[in-house]
Amino acid sequence: MVIVMNAHATDEEIASVTDRVEALGFHAHLSRGSERTIIGVIGDERPVDPEVFEALAGVERVVRILHPAKLASRDYHPDDRVIELPNGARLGGGQIEVMAGPCAVESREQLEQAASAVATAGVRILRGGAFKPRTSPYSFQGLGEKGLLFLREVADDLGMAVVTEVVSPQDVPLVGEFADILQVGARNMANFSLLKAAGGAGRPVLLKRGLGSTIDELLQAAEYILSQGNDHVALCERGIRTFETSTRFTLDINAIPVLKQLTSLPVVVDPSHATGKAELVGPVALAGVAAGADGLLVEVHPNPREALSDGAQSLDPEAFATLMSSVRSLAVALGRKAA
Amino acid sequence: MVIVMNAHATDEEIASVTDRVEALGFHAHLSRGSERTIIGVIGDERPVDPEVFEALAGVERVVRILHPAKLASRDYHPDDRVIELPNGARLGGGQIEVMAGPCAVESREQLEQAASAVATAGVRILRGGAFKPRTSPYSFQGLGEKGLLFLREVADDLGMAVVTEVVSPQDVPLVGEFADILQVGARNMANFSLLKAAGGAGRPVLLKRGLGSTIDELLQAAEYILSQGNDHVALCERGIRTFETSTRFTLDINAIPVLKQLTSLPVVVDPSHATGKAELVGPVALAGVAAGADGLLVEVHPNPREALSDGAQSLDPEAFATLMSSVRSLAVALGRKAA
Amino acid sequence: MVIVMNAHATDEEIASVTDRVEALGFHAHLSRGSERTIIGVIGDERPVDPEVFEALAGVERVVRILHPAKLASRDYHPDDRVIELPNGARLGGGQIEVMAGPCAVESREQLEQAASAVATAGVRILRGGAFKPRTSPYSFQGLGEKGLLFLREVADDLGMAVVTEVVSPQDVPLVGEFADILQVGARNMANFSLLKAAGGAGRPVLLKRGLGSTIDELLQAAEYILSQGNDHVALCERGIRTFETSTRFTLDINAIPVLKQLTSLPVVVDPSHATGKAELVGPVALAGVAAGADGLLVEVHPNPREALSDGAQSLDPEAFATLMSSVRSLAVALGRKAA
Amino acid sequence: MVIVMNAHATDEEIASVTDRVEALGFHAHLSRGSERTIIGVIGDERPVDPEVFEALAGVERVVRILHPAKLASRDYHPDDRVIELPNGARLGGGQIEVMAGPCAVESREQLEQAASAVATAGVRILRGGAFKPRTSPYSFQGLGEKGLLFLREVADDLGMAVVTEVVSPQDVPLVGEFADILQVGARNMANFSLLKAAGGAGRPVLLKRGLGSTIDELLQAAEYILSQGNDHVALCERGIRTFETSTRFTLDINAIPVLKQLTSLPVVVDPSHATGKAELVGPVALAGVAAGADGLLVEVHPNPREALSDGAQSLDPEAFATLMSSVRSLAVALGRKAA
Repeated sequence: MVIVMNAHATDEEIASVTDRVEALGFHAHLSRGSERTIIGVIGDERPVDPEVFEALAGVERVVRILHPAKLASRDYHPDDRVIELPNGARLGGGQIEVMAGPCAVESREQLEQAASAVATAGVRILRGGAFKPRTSPYSFQGLGEKGLLFLREVADDLGMAVVTEVVSPQDVPLVGEFADILQVGARNMANFSLLKAAGGAGRPVLLKRGLGSTIDELLQAAEYILSQGNDHVALCERGIRTFETSTRFTLDINAIPVLKQLTSLPVVVDPSHATGKAELVGPVALAGVAAGADGLLVEVHPNPREALSDGAQSLDPEAFATLMSSVRSLAVALGRKAA
Repeated sequence: MVIVMNAHATDEEIASVTDRVEALGFHAHLSRGSERTIIGVIGDERPVDPEVFEALAGVERVVRILHPAKLASRDYHPDDRVIELPNGARLGGGQIEVMAGPCAVESREQLEQAASAVATAGVRILRGGAFKPRTSPYSFQGLGEKGLLFLREVADDLGMAVVTEVVSPQDVPLVGEFADILQVGARNMANFSLLKAAGGAGRPVLLKRGLGSTIDELLQAAEYILSQGNDHVALCERGIRTFETSTRFTLDINAIPVLKQLTSLPVVVDPSHATGKAELVGPVALAGVAAGADGLLVEVHPNPREALSDGAQSLDPEAFATLMSSVRSLAVALGRKAA
Repeated sequence: MVIVMNAHATDEEIASVTDRVEALGFHAHLSRGSERTIIGVIGDERPVDPEVFEALAGVERVVRILHPAKLASRDYHPDDRVIELPNGARLGGGQIEVMAGPCAVESREQLEQAASAVATAGVRILRGGAFKPRTSPYSFQGLGEKGLLFLREVADDLGMAVVTEVVSPQDVPLVGEFADILQVGARNMANFSLLKAAGGAGRPVLLKRGLGSTIDELLQAAEYILSQGNDHVALCERGIRTFETSTRFTLDINAIPVLKQLTSLPVVVDPSHATGKAELVGPVALAGVAAGADGLLVEVHPNPREALSDGAQSLDPEAFATLMSSVRSLAVALGRKAA
Repeated sequence: MVIVMNAHATDEEIASVTDRVEALGFHAHLSRGSERTIIGVIGDERPVDPEVFEALAGVERVVRILHPAKLASRDYHPDDRVIELPNGARLGGGQIEVMAGPCAVESREQLEQAASAVATAGVRILRGGAFKPRTSPYSFQGLGEKGLLFLREVADDLGMAVVTEVVSPQDVPLVGEFADILQVGARNMANFSLLKAAGGAGRPVLLKRGLGSTIDELLQAAEYILSQGNDHVALCERGIRTFETSTRFTLDINAIPVLKQLTSLPVVVDPSHATGKAELVGPVALAGVAAGADGLLVEVHPNPREALSDGAQSLDPEAFATLMSSVRSLAVALGRKAA
């Protein structure tokens, strides 16, 4: 951390800041420039909030030097972390793993059709929502426990693993009974009660970036889970809020190589939510793979025109099969392996 | 809702869309332009997701005509809604009510000093956090139930009401025992489990806008609470994420008059979180009042330099008293009343 | 400037960076932390681009300590700078000066009606566009030189000063003949050829913040003008691009007190462009004044419903007169003076 | 265009709006819903500003149905447009064309080294800046005419075409003498004087998206050029401003397939400016190609550590050769051709 004093900071103010730095167990390293004095804070700054110093008299601003998430960082854990599932699916470590299925589980039939289509195309992890976080209270909210049961049964029949969202700390044990991977959605990325509960559930967690959250905050949300002793976290870029309105969100493609640098956790891309339109899903999915993602999360519906949610962004089985074939060609060209 | 067909939509596609519209109980009203056909959906569109139509063949896009939140709208409830608290404090209805106190309850002594300072300055609603949602797992997470107890006792001694944040559905009954107003924080605005729980608690709710959330989404989040039968919701603008980095967030001042048009719920401004810097709190607080806000939410700490959280954006008692005096002058100039 | 070396930077890399620092005439001040080495660059860093160091081996990132705009800064020129116009109008120095008039000059009659209305309400600076930068090539592009002539004549008749936009370096001399203040619009804030030309014209310049530009970039754009020897620059906050779509732009109200801290140049607010809707102009204008702005820039049209541009955001004479009266009350309440 | 009347619009207001619609030569198509009346505007709405209706009494808002840029649209010109250069390079039509070279021309030697390196890697279009738009007036502003001469001579020696930026309308003829493609930079995308001048120069134009500009605005800026009778315009996505700070800008990868849908103009990606960091350029460049871009614009410097501008985001010749080889593999995998 570097503390920048303002132009008119007095010697007393500087001394008071260095005292505070030392009192917190750090070494203070003073550097007097022509117009500003800056104070280096030597030590592991991560557990300390910059605000502790920003509030002091004479301080102009405080700059972090270290990324605040330690356990998530590649500095701390240099080798790629891999999540291995019982059925052989793997997130991380270079191969490209695709998770696919319907936005919401609507019925056993709909789920079977979707699951069978994506399994045929080579998918080993079935996605599907049983508890749906919806912007409007009047939208379909999901089948709940019945949806979980359908997911487990259908996946077992096809030898697939299950990833599904959990939206409330109370539901974590229930969802953990049925799912191989717990998903924490974008709107809950900073729901710290949920992060702690998910962290303690003994299941891998797929953590989606909040639509108004920075990469640093995503890593700190992962840190909540990791600090519960759960090392199996995959991160998902799913688009952020920007001023552009022609798509629902803006996929932050830069975030893929940035995350691969900063952390050794697996990173996947969700082109369905990032674009909101089925015809854009393919190009953006391929872009995610080309940028280095470890996998994809794709919405597939047996009949998107009848979907109870996210129909406009869901691929039908045929379009999905075409996408999978392109993903495989791309993987080969990039010297990587697609599941 | 207006459905815009694409340039090459066939008659069959158009017929299929109108059939779907009628099947959902609406009347379809066709309008053939020179380059596009558009289909008006006549009826109360609010419970219907535009996606239902966006996924259909030949549809280019769907435009909502009505704001999706009905109960929250001024159309539905034209007169200003007012939240009256047992101690006489009132949110809404023209007067300016200030809620103030420390970011986090750190100790009984700290809370007493803060509360006594803001009460002396004329404040009738004490704010303070017992459960703190923190970006980093290593930051101070609040005193929990002990903090709630301190809040209640200190407020009662001073004849004040209490507003405090609840971060998890399980905690709603507990927090409801101690608080007059339940606060749902910005990071939980789209935590729909929490919204439902808070809606059912029989207490007024102060709902903060998510930092990546639109005004429409804020109103839909309020709708979750209102649709539980709880009509006592106040909205809080506290700054949104933008590209500007010289302040922590960007207060969306336009949102104040926009919200006052769209909804009759009370609207307050939080200049502390919106700026992140104590020296900006005063000017931005006054701006909020001038723009028409029904109140303010301000962080005040007896000694900001020792604060365990948000020290940099907390006012000390002296600066706060000056602000309150300016708020009163402003209120008079605007023909309004400050509590 | 502080150079942060990455975790694995070698001694050679560190030495090579310090060599570069010294070669550029600075003193390098080394600080070895537990996980990172940082190098302080002592001297006036402003003319140096951080990229010069970012490209060097082993460098993780570079943090500026000083704001890059020197001449614009309050450090450099602590006292408020005031622009005094021949007719007694003054931008800066505490009073509130309102510039008003139509978006575009459409005809002599229209301009006379608008000017007479705003003059009656107390305005001393007439605004009006003769050269209009329009997003679409099919929109009305302004009357050009004829519009300038109308502005000058109408203003002279009423004892008013004129502010009008210049959109091309070639037009600077022409516009300078007719206008008291040259306006550089938001879309040209980073049109550096225009900034240089405007800087050399011997006229005060009203510089609007770009809709995708930071406060720092606004100050650097001002620096282009100031570095031509022209010290008469006023800055205008007119809304930035954000994800919120209920208003055309988002007025960055925080920017007012931030700019007043960083620079001693006058700062004005344009509530018309920031909101795009006439019914929001009043509340947002008052917010700008309450936040500390030195003035306003407001679009007024004798008959907004017939306007060739910006009709939806233009006030009619009556609404404008009401606003002026509120501005005066507010000014009194704030201990300031409205022109 | 669809005009939405507000809930309380009177019959007179509705009649007055339809009169205005008809007076402008359109047919008005009325649709009375349960809570709102909407008026369809039948005819080519593109030349009309929505504001014309937004200002009328009783109007809530106006929704465009057609994209405002006509000449640029794929509706108007369905087949891919291709820009063919004298040396055989081609932008558009399916193949992947890479433009590369230094950010700024610093000297003849530097340019020769860069050009020779990129030519060896297979590049046919040399990029390099002679007139540099720089945020700070104290940064290197380019060699001007001498830089243009170097570009032409070095390119001719290697059989390359030249793309270089023009920053002022006066410079268009001069730059047109030396360059095969005129580049209009991001900061000048809405400099309409420059767009008109560039449109009339008889040269292809590479138009970069403004960092705060929407896709619609980019197409309208292209329309300025196209409406001068110049059909040779290529569009460039180079990153937009968002709240994410770990990269300089956020590449809007969604924009590639969106633009390919809306327009038949060629679309290229600039991964250098979009990321600001050399180590991110490769992954993001590949993502651009995978998303369907017709080409890339990449900064290459013989020795990035000595660069006078953009050193941190410039590739050295070795890294660039590796990237070109990956681009070729990717092109094959995607069934496309790399130049």
